[in-house]
Amino acid sequence: MRKCYFDHAAANPLHPAVLDAMMPFFKEDFGNALSLYDLGVKARDAIEKARQDVANLINAKPSGIIFTSGGVEANNTALRGIALAKQPKGNHIIVSKVEHHSILNSARFLEKSGFVVTYLPVDKHGLVDPDNLNKAITKETVLISITQASREIGTLEPIKELVSVAKQKGVLFHTDAVSTAGNIPVDVSELGVDLLSMTAHQFYGPKGAGALYVREGTRLVPLMYGGIQEGGRRAGTENVAAIAGMGRAAALAREEMTTRMEHTSKLRDRLIEGVSKVPNVYLTGHPEKRLPNHASFVVEFIEGEAMLLMLAMKGIYAASGSACSSKALKASPVLMSLGVTSALAQGSIVFTLGSDNSVEDVDYFLNEFPAIIKRLREMSPFAKGWGDEGQGEKCYVGGQ
Amino acid sequence: MRKCYFDHAAANPLHPAVLDAMMPFFKEDFGNALSLYDLGVKARDAIEKARQDVANLINAKPSGIIFTSGGVEANNTALRGIALAKQPKGNHIIVSKVEHHSILNSARFLEKSGFVVTYLPVDKHGLVDPDNLNKAITKETVLISITQASREIGTLEPIKELVSVAKQKGVLFHTDAVSTAGNIPVDVSELGVDLLSMTAHQFYGPKGAGALYVREGTRLVPLMYGGIQEGGRRAGTENVAAIAGMGRAAALAREEMTTRMEHTSKLRDRLIEGVSKVPNVYLTGHPEKRLPNHASFVVEFIEGEAMLLMLAMKGIYAASGSACSSKALKASPVLMSLGVTSALAQGSIVFTLGSDNSVEDVDYFLNEFPAIIKRLREMSPFAKGWGDEGQGEKCYVGGQ
Repeated sequence: MRKCYFDHAAANPLHPAVLDAMMPFFKEDFGNALSLYDLGVKARDAIEKARQDVANLINAKPSGIIFTSGGVEANNTALRGIALAKQPKGNHIIVSKVEHHSILNSARFLEKSGFVVTYLPVDKHGLVDPDNLNKAITKETVLISITQASREIGTLEPIKELVSVAKQKGVLFHTDAVSTAGNIPVDVSELGVDLLSMTAHQFYGPKGAGALYVREGTRLVPLMYGGIQEGGRRAGTENVAAIAGMGRAAALAREEMTTRMEHTSKLRDRLIEGVSKVPNVYLTGHPEKRLPNHASFVVEFIEGEAMLLMLAMKGIYAASGSACSSKALKASPVLMSLGVTSALAQGSIVFTLGSDNSVEDVDYFLNEFPAIIKRLREMSPFAKGWGDEGQGEKCYVGGQ
Repeated sequence: MRKCYFDHAAANPLHPAVLDAMMPFFKEDFGNALSLYDLGVKARDAIEKARQDVANLINAKPSGIIFTSGGVEANNTALRGIALAKQPKGNHIIVSKVEHHSILNSARFLEKSGFVVTYLPVDKHGLVDPDNLNKAITKETVLISITQASREIGTLEPIKELVSVAKQKGVLFHTDAVSTAGNIPVDVSELGVDLLSMTAHQFYGPKGAGALYVREGTRLVPLMYGGIQEGGRRAGTENVAAIAGMGRAAALAREEMTTRMEHTSKLRDRLIEGVSKVPNVYLTGHPEKRLPNHASFVVEFIEGEAMLLMLAMKGIYAASGSACSSKALKASPVLMSLGVTSALAQGSIVFTLGSDNSVEDVDYFLNEFPAIIKRLREMSPFAKGWGDEGQGEKCYVGGQ
């Protein structure tokens, strides 16, 4: 059976060259980067080389890169680190409604600690309006955090415009770039962001390595206390192999980005075109302003988990909602923020494409998909009214 | 040249069987543990297998194990997680003066957040007195955190007795077992601790994986917010390879513990005996109650970094103070707490032995050491008074 892995947002296969870059640190070069002797120097050099490669990927200074255990840690560090550092100045934070759980739940934690959080609405395509941001900023606002692209709907936010609003009011701006950095051109200087989160396993690097970019001169309270690693901003013995892997993955992403984007966007367009022919299936997110490898839908009268399992039986791997909520079985707050009903949100399905996918993969899927949907609708209690006149009108048609 | 790696507390070489256990997750089994399909199931199964192996190592229930990115994260999670959860009950925390930076600096952070912290003194061997703990507990005390063994001086604390004091007053007890778990028998049930931190790279596992044991029914505020991983107690895509490696390392440690302990304790005794013959070199920590692989000293009239570099030139790798402070070049607070002067603390040297060391390694080192010390003393401005009558009396002789 053909295997079509369309879930690159959940996990990327490791690039073989990345694994090669990691291997010495699992073998002879096992030293602690803080040790003074040659084994320590080797580990340290590998980390600094990776820092340069990661910095190059986002056009940052290497000194602005703090390595973390992943994107979630980077997001937690940004939100709490800035909130605590800025607490004497104000207690208001702004995030959008299409943020990842690591932002939304960090914001909720801060609410319990005396912060006031504004959750900015989005339009039916998931876009945050810079005017709305402008109106939300108060004298108390110390941080704005808006994702560069939602992992669930793929919509690319107008970060440059949003940052421009923030700068006019002198408020720090963080963006969760976990799904963009390494996948599309990301330039912290051009975007003007003060902080940016990224993770290696979104661009064929290993799990266990992420980074937070922090603009020079931005004070941050650490999330992790301990030794002097990462300039005192993130304690803990460095995961040298994973960091070296992230560096190699960043260098490869920079070299191959155009090719990768062209490849996946062609497949994405083919997939969206094909799926759109299936009745009562709606694209979520923006029709054009979206990640090149991202196609997401809601399928009416269907429960996402059943759809995923049926697809998996055909060797097709996709996600329902974000990877972090696939098993949570709650209606996605991101989809709800677009105006999708909670019933329809149950039928969420997300395809994220990669270098390992081919036109044949997409065509194989497109060939199998209608029959799976038909069968599920026949089985599903949700589908009772399917085909009844007028049902379609109630549905979310944001992406159409 | 012979290579003698005596710095296992800084980093352990990965056990080849551990790397074997990790490799599939860098290759074909790259899935996200939250994905519903077979790749996700494989990752999830690997994590749950590892959880069982790690639980077995410390005689815990698997449900009590929270995987983290390492020991520092486990310590930060324990201190802040319990402090925040218990804040309505009281604002007093007790730690010892021989804790790792991740405990001491977390405690200092909590002081800034309205907590009162007692730093318990230790005797000249580094032991915490249960009577002192008893006196320090107030009605406001919500957490006690005392390491099972200091990484710098190797002294094994009387955790069972300390826990017994804590239990009488109904206070939660955490122990930093980073240098003990996997190296000596650790049984959470016998010790009676409520929380325990550990890390894989202290027992031939990979960097990037650690665990916090939390006794059933103990409420903890997460350090990392996001998805539903680790039962909602630690968000972030699981580093499956590292976790699988930690599990394998835990299983191996359990099987081989007696052999490993016998091997390293013989080498340790030989090393201590040999080094003790060098004039004006003093054992730090307890002469008997110490980690089986740990030998630590202060060398009078010598600066630790120079000593490390000279040893490294002979292929001998050791540390000065804890791995996290080797590059910080501050006088170690742990040594100061034993009554070591700040001048003498500069001459700290720590040897941590491992399975890869031999009697020949130790003898090679013992043969080189006196000449290195002699040469450094000849060069050093600290050594001016060396040999003057009476100098020795001012020195710390705790370990003698």
